[in-house]
Amino acid sequence: MEKYNLIVGQSGGPTAVINCSLYGVIKQCLESEEIGTVYGMVNGIEGFLKGNVIDLKEEFRDPEKLELLKQTPAAFLGSCRYKLPPIDETEVYEEMFDKFNDLNIGAFLYIGGNDSMDTAGKLAAYGRRHGSDIRFLGVPKTIDNDLVGTDHTPGYGSAAKYIAATVRDISIDAGAYDLKSVTILEIMGRHAGWLCAASALARNEHEHNPMLIYLPETPFHMEQFVQNVKDALEKEKNVVVCVSEGIRDEEGRLICEYKGKAEVDSFGHKKLTGAAKLLEAAIMSEIPAVKCRSMEFSLTQRSSAVLASGRDKEEAEQVGRVAVRAAIAGESHQMVCMERAEGEEYKIDYVLKDVVEIGNKEKLIPSWWITKDGTDVTDDFIDYVKPLIEGECDIKYQDGLPLYVHRSRASM
Amino acid sequence: MEKYNLIVGQSGGPTAVINCSLYGVIKQCLESEEIGTVYGMVNGIEGFLKGNVIDLKEEFRDPEKLELLKQTPAAFLGSCRYKLPPIDETEVYEEMFDKFNDLNIGAFLYIGGNDSMDTAGKLAAYGRRHGSDIRFLGVPKTIDNDLVGTDHTPGYGSAAKYIAATVRDISIDAGAYDLKSVTILEIMGRHAGWLCAASALARNEHEHNPMLIYLPETPFHMEQFVQNVKDALEKEKNVVVCVSEGIRDEEGRLICEYKGKAEVDSFGHKKLTGAAKLLEAAIMSEIPAVKCRSMEFSLTQRSSAVLASGRDKEEAEQVGRVAVRAAIAGESHQMVCMERAEGEEYKIDYVLKDVVEIGNKEKLIPSWWITKDGTDVTDDFIDYVKPLIEGECDIKYQDGLPLYVHRSRASM
Repeated sequence: MEKYNLIVGQSGGPTAVINCSLYGVIKQCLESEEIGTVYGMVNGIEGFLKGNVIDLKEEFRDPEKLELLKQTPAAFLGSCRYKLPPIDETEVYEEMFDKFNDLNIGAFLYIGGNDSMDTAGKLAAYGRRHGSDIRFLGVPKTIDNDLVGTDHTPGYGSAAKYIAATVRDISIDAGAYDLKSVTILEIMGRHAGWLCAASALARNEHEHNPMLIYLPETPFHMEQFVQNVKDALEKEKNVVVCVSEGIRDEEGRLICEYKGKAEVDSFGHKKLTGAAKLLEAAIMSEIPAVKCRSMEFSLTQRSSAVLASGRDKEEAEQVGRVAVRAAIAGESHQMVCMERAEGEEYKIDYVLKDVVEIGNKEKLIPSWWITKDGTDVTDDFIDYVKPLIEGECDIKYQDGLPLYVHRSRASM
Repeated sequence: MEKYNLIVGQSGGPTAVINCSLYGVIKQCLESEEIGTVYGMVNGIEGFLKGNVIDLKEEFRDPEKLELLKQTPAAFLGSCRYKLPPIDETEVYEEMFDKFNDLNIGAFLYIGGNDSMDTAGKLAAYGRRHGSDIRFLGVPKTIDNDLVGTDHTPGYGSAAKYIAATVRDISIDAGAYDLKSVTILEIMGRHAGWLCAASALARNEHEHNPMLIYLPETPFHMEQFVQNVKDALEKEKNVVVCVSEGIRDEEGRLICEYKGKAEVDSFGHKKLTGAAKLLEAAIMSEIPAVKCRSMEFSLTQRSSAVLASGRDKEEAEQVGRVAVRAAIAGESHQMVCMERAEGEEYKIDYVLKDVVEIGNKEKLIPSWWITKDGTDVTDDFIDYVKPLIEGECDIKYQDGLPLYVHRSRASM
């Protein structure tokens, strides 16, 4: 059989380990004699349509550079948020498949979240309808952990580790003074509270914070919140509260919009910031004798190289490798999913699932993992999330800072 | 000569390495036969006056626990912000010196910033006036780097490293999309811009951000700022701007107060947050086609264990050790200062200076280390700050998170 080329792209929000999946793809291609060249789309399919493609075997001729890719956060290839039209609108598809043919592409891999799985699914469906033998595979990635069909998503474990470590650091810092204080931390999560829930890992036998955790899955009541904080202050002088940016009230109204409509960014996504600020104002007005502060974790929670989870990095690499092997085996229209084995010991099996089952869906935290009063998670959730943050990374530094690799200009 | 006891306290805002200084004090005491017991004030002199004291030799009987102290951020002993009255108001001094005598204290060490040096100075002056032979020494600590008399302060290097690494991570993340974007980062610094200036270390041959740096030392003009951002966007699509929380205009008015008076916390300090948010609003209104975001670094910049600077930790330990040796040698009324040797190679000499020269003063960035247009720092500043972030720490983890030590309840 003649060799064919593989093309890979990254899409959606970056994570600390999305480049580990890219590493896995490149490494597996180098080890597979079926694959000729490995191309990278620069800025996903949006860049691909503009002709922005690089030769990744050429880019990573130096094996040391390839190893550094694993500790480089954010999307090495660049990302995009580009939604393909329905496959009946053939124009853009014709253009893409012409380009695929020009480059002798036999396999297309897309690393991303549910929007990206929508892309992979549409391309696969179009290809099938038009008799193409190109294989289309999805490689999961999102800090939000909201993809269905998989135990968890690569990227989540590292963000969870960053959040747990940082909540603990802040709690220790906030407890330095002998006074009552409330610290409100705003964590990413528009609809699903997985990231905020991970803050519970900050607790241990010495550390009682976060004492309160509010998730988008449970309706938020401002008066109840103030009462919860008062109760917490009866028990401990240093109270740390973690809230998802997307918390909303019984009517579904976002708390961050209580002060006015949220701004909309250039992608049409609402900027969901300000919930913590608003809760801070409520505490300062209702419990004035207490020191109160708020902060937003913002971009650092998805881009920290030094707090990436070793296990997450390893799994991110594996989903990339499995996707290449699946493509070689002739699979298409699938995403690589992770299934956790039953039993005490943590073990993951990698399986394939139809992308249509995954794209455009959203997995929330199940209600039985949230306490009845809606201010905490259960021990079962802790058992679920704890293994995902395990393992540290041996980071290479230069001049006191982590050493990253940088993309050459697109050459084709 | 009979053995005497030493007492040590921590005061002011915590840092990532303030416990390394405490480690240095304890270690040096253990190695010095002149010192009997080492006491720790819990929550500084405020706690001491309430009788909150622990026996640190007892607390750290386990040498492994003592080693973990070095990687534990925030003030292990707890902190306070307590200003002593003038020494003519003798009541509180009498109370303190009685307690010193009860505990057979021969040396008093205070780890802190300029407020803490004021404390050490007043106690020394009172003691001198009343014939006490207790030695009072100051051990420098502050992320702000604003103490006079010393090349830099322990705590600054670690905060600078955190800031440089995080600005680089965020810049890479923000550059993932193929679109014009402005990211505004607010960094601590009320009057002195040392922390924000350290963001310049994020740049290297690949990384052009931060493209603009605004410090409290230079008056801020809103129109000029918008123009600077427009000019930067002509050169690069991904523009990261770093601003000190304390930037102010020509009239000395704080930018964060443009939308109303800053809230005052329970210490009477203004909460200087919101400058970045305000600049974000200005950019969104003046350059609407561009994606714009802002974030505040907040408490993480002073409490990150994993991004602490190895050199900073080493120096923080040394200033603690030097203070103990100085006390044993009979010195009093002094702070340990760091002097940098001339020449290519980085080398620090530890010297003593009168605390009165240091307390209640503030060191700003000299004008010759800021570019004429007020949007950057000079190469000389880079040469100054670069060695301070060097060296990494081998952190011990448990369950995926850095392992910290915790204080027992005060026992005396």
